[in-house]
Amino acid sequence: MGEVKVIGSTKSLFCTRIEWALKLKGVEYEYLNEDLKNKSPTLLKYNPVHKKVPVLLHDGKSIAESLVILEYIDEVWTQNPLLPQDPYQRTISRFWAKFSDEKVLLGSFGACKAQGEEKQKAVESAHESQAFLEKEIEGKKYSGGESIGYLDLTIGWIPLWISVMEEVDEMKLIETEKFPFLHKWSQNFMETPLIRECLPSGEALLEHFHTTISFLRSLEANKQ
Amino acid sequence: MGEVKVIGSTKSLFCTRIEWALKLKGVEYEYLNEDLKNKSPTLLKYNPVHKKVPVLLHDGKSIAESLVILEYIDEVWTQNPLLPQDPYQRTISRFWAKFSDEKVLLGSFGACKAQGEEKQKAVESAHESQAFLEKEIEGKKYSGGESIGYLDLTIGWIPLWISVMEEVDEMKLIETEKFPFLHKWSQNFMETPLIRECLPSGEALLEHFHTTISFLRSLEANKQ
Repeated sequence: MGEVKVIGSTKSLFCTRIEWALKLKGVEYEYLNEDLKNKSPTLLKYNPVHKKVPVLLHDGKSIAESLVILEYIDEVWTQNPLLPQDPYQRTISRFWAKFSDEKVLLGSFGACKAQGEEKQKAVESAHESQAFLEKEIEGKKYSGGESIGYLDLTIGWIPLWISVMEEVDEMKLIETEKFPFLHKWSQNFMETPLIRECLPSGEALLEHFHTTISFLRSLEANKQ
Repeated sequence: MGEVKVIGSTKSLFCTRIEWALKLKGVEYEYLNEDLKNKSPTLLKYNPVHKKVPVLLHDGKSIAESLVILEYIDEVWTQNPLLPQDPYQRTISRFWAKFSDEKVLLGSFGACKAQGEEKQKAVESAHESQAFLEKEIEGKKYSGGESIGYLDLTIGWIPLWISVMEEVDEMKLIETEKFPFLHKWSQNFMETPLIRECLPSGEALLEHFHTTISFLRSLEANKQ
């Protein structure tokens, strides 16, 4: 099925979800680790629009944006489907994946970034988004049932990032008592051998987190 | 194929793209026009997460988020495909649709919203995003070739919104000389009878534009 390469960073969970998908499909790939502080000509050539990781290279053709890449992987390598077969269930997965990236992930980062008066409001807003996801995941081993799928890979940042966020910010974001189903799901997900095979180190995530938060705060400061 | 309803607003081009898709597919539907200033219990019931239009109801099942809805329509009603059949071409359409919504559309709104010192920077940033889309559309009648597809419907806001933005803001956003291919594409798109059948009025767009810009500026003011 052709040569597969991933331009990624081991510090980014957007890249990890691509590796998980390829491993689930049993696709061999070469990993090109990118120094995000000094982006390579290869990255700039293959993702000139966003200049961001991850990028999937398949026989020299490039694909960017992690959710778009996951759909491509699922369509090209049809074994172990990531998206459900039923159109309505597919749509539900896509909806929650988008929601998770745009609201839950960004909302949680927003809560960490916020300072002063804004903090409480930002934490409440993050909790509100998390509560919607909690309801969706209620009582499920994985999002799609008995095997890992598209939505699980998309929300796979939760068990990893949340613990980093809490460690740094000393702020409980997804509290076990409030979100028991997300915690049970996180446990199932992290116990899956294939998922454990490919995880960024806590140290790498911590470094990436500090950089991201400083960057977001500097943007905020420049605006004022 | 079951009962189809669209909860929408004739002022929103996110809703118009859903109507265009259903018309292209030859699907009959009922339109439930929503008063966005006084949202109906029906909207809140079927899109409790975002509380936004459009929502597609198919046999009572609800789907939100316009790009997710387009994919659903294409999977359920397979005649006149919206997405290309080739996985790589599909991925390209998805990439540019996401880019168009997140960068070109929001960037253009950002340029209109910006005031004072920020204005020039925001206009340049919008032009930069538009230039990427211009390159993608170069020399094509429609984005996918000879018939209207997913990406055309997604960027279908351009010929309509841009003229409203320019009228209000007295600022040329997509200049003909700079973006000849986007202009040629806009012309082809707007000359298509099926597209013309279903267009929001200029007046409705103008009103919606003013509301959106005022809302964005008030958010900005509250932050400072």
